[in-house]
Amino acid sequence: MSTIELLSEHACFGGVQRFYKHASRETRGSMKFSVYLPPQFRTGKVPVLYYLAGLTCTEENFPVKGHAQSAAAELGLMLVAPDTSPREPRLPGDADSYDFGQGAGFYVDATQAPWSANYRMYSYVTRELPELVAEHLPVRADASGIFGHSMGGHGALVCALRNPSQYKSVSAFAPIAAPQQCAWGQKAFTNYLGMDTGAWGEYDASVLVARKRFHGPILIDQGTADQFLEKQLLPEKFSAAAEKSGQPLKLRMQPGYDHSYYFIQTFMADHLRHHAAYLKP
Amino acid sequence: MSTIELLSEHACFGGVQRFYKHASRETRGSMKFSVYLPPQFRTGKVPVLYYLAGLTCTEENFPVKGHAQSAAAELGLMLVAPDTSPREPRLPGDADSYDFGQGAGFYVDATQAPWSANYRMYSYVTRELPELVAEHLPVRADASGIFGHSMGGHGALVCALRNPSQYKSVSAFAPIAAPQQCAWGQKAFTNYLGMDTGAWGEYDASVLVARKRFHGPILIDQGTADQFLEKQLLPEKFSAAAEKSGQPLKLRMQPGYDHSYYFIQTFMADHLRHHAAYLKP
Repeated sequence: MSTIELLSEHACFGGVQRFYKHASRETRGSMKFSVYLPPQFRTGKVPVLYYLAGLTCTEENFPVKGHAQSAAAELGLMLVAPDTSPREPRLPGDADSYDFGQGAGFYVDATQAPWSANYRMYSYVTRELPELVAEHLPVRADASGIFGHSMGGHGALVCALRNPSQYKSVSAFAPIAAPQQCAWGQKAFTNYLGMDTGAWGEYDASVLVARKRFHGPILIDQGTADQFLEKQLLPEKFSAAAEKSGQPLKLRMQPGYDHSYYFIQTFMADHLRHHAAYLKP
Repeated sequence: MSTIELLSEHACFGGVQRFYKHASRETRGSMKFSVYLPPQFRTGKVPVLYYLAGLTCTEENFPVKGHAQSAAAELGLMLVAPDTSPREPRLPGDADSYDFGQGAGFYVDATQAPWSANYRMYSYVTRELPELVAEHLPVRADASGIFGHSMGGHGALVCALRNPSQYKSVSAFAPIAAPQQCAWGQKAFTNYLGMDTGAWGEYDASVLVARKRFHGPILIDQGTADQFLEKQLLPEKFSAAAEKSGQPLKLRMQPGYDHSYYFIQTFMADHLRHHAAYLKP
């Protein structure tokens, strides 16, 4: 039996926004996550949608900036958002840059010292966190979806493509869609996974989707004015890879939108409705 | 002619979220404010709704945490949110406490040195900012409303009650409704306005509303689990004062809600619809 500590809770759209803390077996330190419980949790179990945030974020960005609670209350979806990296123990150099270490776990299980002892966000997100949620919250065990933004969009695509039986639905906002081919991904993978690029493919959504399609359509929104579009995000690589396996993909290029939460909040309700269609059949 | 500098802009719900900076004549320093332009601004002038934020906030809290852009886009309302105090020049002791000085201008024109030279947020909000908005943005001159939270709810009520011909509508989330009778208000008024309490009534919504009613109904939402309800907010004083002048008041006590933006976001669309009814006749 695991234990989780309730840090705070706030009434919100008839439901409750909560923040939890717990001792993580995967990251071997204290981890926080946020949970939005829709009003429907009072009368029965509800589906759950996991949100993975981007570089520099914590478990707080999504509930504060995502503007998702209104639609989640209407649709009866629980929302769970983990932190983006371990925060303790501290490691040498873990705060030297915004795109590696603290706030930049990249949702991988690191294999390189010293990161390998704690930076296990892939196993944290796909195993430990769902176990905690199942044990402590009124969740429907057979109804989980996953989505995220930027680094978290990469994480969501990888988690879903590698664990199709665990997730009924997946979507992303401006994901790092081909991390092996961009500077953010190359830096993270080199440090977390090592110089041998053979191990990288398991964490590259474009590699994974070319190999085997997900069982449902994938929704991706991408702003055309996103400052990271051309060099870091590369949705066209993912789109080409999806064609290889026949993966149904709805890639929407949104004119004039940038990489910020103002973009995310605009299309948040669309994403929740996409997930609800598969989580509430 | 005044000048304003565009700091950033982000596409949002078909409109644009902007941040501006300008040299203020009232506060004699640089001031920032945020503006949401709904999609309708491209084809004509739109009504404007001013939002005054609470203690410790800046011009950024409302656009990030208020979750107002969705409803504003639907209703065709421009949203303008100023900072909560001057930020420069710095004054001795202006950052010593969260409830006075920086981030705590209380929407008064200070009369006491050294604050009186810069802390003129009442004139800034009711005169200088509307002039800037009229000059630089596609606003309907005859259609302004005002609302706010906590210290900003106090500010909104005071601005509207003292300038009924300027504002067509007013509402508040958990306002400091009788500042002369609570510690927050007493501390601020003593330091900004001096020991002579005779001058305080012009900045006390309960004093003002008892004297003369506003021309339209006032909407106030107040959470029953708000940690500041009993000692600092005192909506019952405002309600009693409103009865004296026959002021129509819709004071909604919201069960279980606290003082946070999770409370505000829940009832944001209701407030925008309240204002739209008067701003878009």
